[in-house]
Amino acid sequence: MAVYTEVSDEDLSAFAAQYDIGEILSCKGIAEGVENSNFQLVAEKGSYILTLYEKRVNPADLPFFLGLIEHLADRGVQCPRPIHALDGEALKSLSGRPAALVTFLSGMWPKRVQPFHTAELGRALAEMHVAGADFEISRENALSVSSWRPLLDACKGRGEEVLVGITAQLEAELDWLEANWPTDLPAGVIHADLFQDNVFFRGENLTGLIDFYFACNDQFAYDVAICLNAWCFEPDLSFNITKARRMLKQYAKVRDFSATELDALPLLARGAAMRFLLTRLYDWLNRPEGALVTPKDPLEFLARLRFHQGVKSPGEYGLD
Amino acid sequence: MAVYTEVSDEDLSAFAAQYDIGEILSCKGIAEGVENSNFQLVAEKGSYILTLYEKRVNPADLPFFLGLIEHLADRGVQCPRPIHALDGEALKSLSGRPAALVTFLSGMWPKRVQPFHTAELGRALAEMHVAGADFEISRENALSVSSWRPLLDACKGRGEEVLVGITAQLEAELDWLEANWPTDLPAGVIHADLFQDNVFFRGENLTGLIDFYFACNDQFAYDVAICLNAWCFEPDLSFNITKARRMLKQYAKVRDFSATELDALPLLARGAAMRFLLTRLYDWLNRPEGALVTPKDPLEFLARLRFHQGVKSPGEYGLD
Repeated sequence: MAVYTEVSDEDLSAFAAQYDIGEILSCKGIAEGVENSNFQLVAEKGSYILTLYEKRVNPADLPFFLGLIEHLADRGVQCPRPIHALDGEALKSLSGRPAALVTFLSGMWPKRVQPFHTAELGRALAEMHVAGADFEISRENALSVSSWRPLLDACKGRGEEVLVGITAQLEAELDWLEANWPTDLPAGVIHADLFQDNVFFRGENLTGLIDFYFACNDQFAYDVAICLNAWCFEPDLSFNITKARRMLKQYAKVRDFSATELDALPLLARGAAMRFLLTRLYDWLNRPEGALVTPKDPLEFLARLRFHQGVKSPGEYGLD
Repeated sequence: MAVYTEVSDEDLSAFAAQYDIGEILSCKGIAEGVENSNFQLVAEKGSYILTLYEKRVNPADLPFFLGLIEHLADRGVQCPRPIHALDGEALKSLSGRPAALVTFLSGMWPKRVQPFHTAELGRALAEMHVAGADFEISRENALSVSSWRPLLDACKGRGEEVLVGITAQLEAELDWLEANWPTDLPAGVIHADLFQDNVFFRGENLTGLIDFYFACNDQFAYDVAICLNAWCFEPDLSFNITKARRMLKQYAKVRDFSATELDALPLLARGAAMRFLLTRLYDWLNRPEGALVTPKDPLEFLARLRFHQGVKSPGEYGLD
């Protein structure tokens, strides 16, 4: 649950007057989301999402994020499009925070994933990778392999509070990942956080990808590996090969998924599991007293990591 | 912040199919509100608010609440109107909770109250009192004078944790309120919780009254006294007679505000301050560990109570 910043009537009116959207008819805080304050804003000329960027977002990254979704929307990717103010700017400020207005997308995120969801996801992910190829701004992946050791160190051995023996297991895994991590796979802009709550559907059709605030430049197949972790495990943490197969097949129809990328998939999937395990572990150990947001369970990603460690060949993900 | 119940895709689709609203295009949890789970639902045929009633609402009261807003909407009061399902029922269930769909009202609640707000409020409050006169269901006010002593007793002298000496002060005030509380003023359906977040405006025009979940049968002037407490004090807790005057004058233009009611206003205002002070005090002393909702400060109403105790004549509220 979010909405951290309360916006005064006067501030909101002054903000809206900078845009050609007409009078504001309604502006309600959205309960979902944990990083920023989001509002569903209805104005005379349409419906929008108003986002106030809270302190976890680096303002220097905002031109990348807003430029990226505009670039993608221009190329037909189903994602929010920034609304430019009358002066041409897409980034403004509101109540002391950087703020932006983007188009409202219909659809809802799937609470229970079915294979048709992952098929659509695979297609949309590949379309995003292709469309982002010529985006001119770049942003380093701050949560890639080189960041994992410092993250684990920052947990200062306190991983044992979550599971006895986890620190040694993760250190051994990190040694292996660091030694084997590829650097020469096809790369470009990736979403890097395409979990269910960031993908909207109407019926069986994908209607939008949202929340590009982890997007960065990295190897495309790593984004695929993140989606394998995010979409292809059941609530009991068992792997669902049907969901993976449909996702990978649709992906490969849009963007050539090379043999080298496929071979790297088990390794990349281990890395993706490690990345979410470590950030969740860190957040779990450092949750503030009285926090409004309940941290997510890091051990869900330990189960995924163990599955990927047991994968003998990339065919086990469903793509031959 | 609310949204306590997560609704599955299948449950939501099955729920919507009971209504003539078309396909659901979007359904987002609303961050505001503390009692129930509220969603802004956009469907092909319009925008709606979907409410799931959580455990603090007694299901036996729902026919009163839903019947009331339909009755009021039929008579032109600006409030949500329940949407009837295809079988004629306005009360359904969703994800194991009683649930209802009502029309979406445009407008926003005022974060900073200005005199034009209280003028509009006075008019709308009186219109609601008049329109509710012939509503046939009744509901006792569970939070009127007879409930205050048990509420104070339930705090078991722990009021001292908030302010030393407060228990004795409140007991003396309660003695006086119980001895002097009127029972013969004009009565009917009152809202009983018309704070800012329950009143929407577009510019200087009131567009809606919402959240009738404390509505009940009681003396009209007590509702006016609640609004005096809710709308006519500044953030520094000083009384603003201009706001009160404009509210009372507009109220009296729509519904005759008798001399007897005016004479009772200081007493009723003390009672209204006591009512919110006590429920806030109780919630403050009984807040659960790790609660998502921060309890409101009870002492804000002790300041109001002291102001009303010092009122020498009802003219001090601005109406002669």
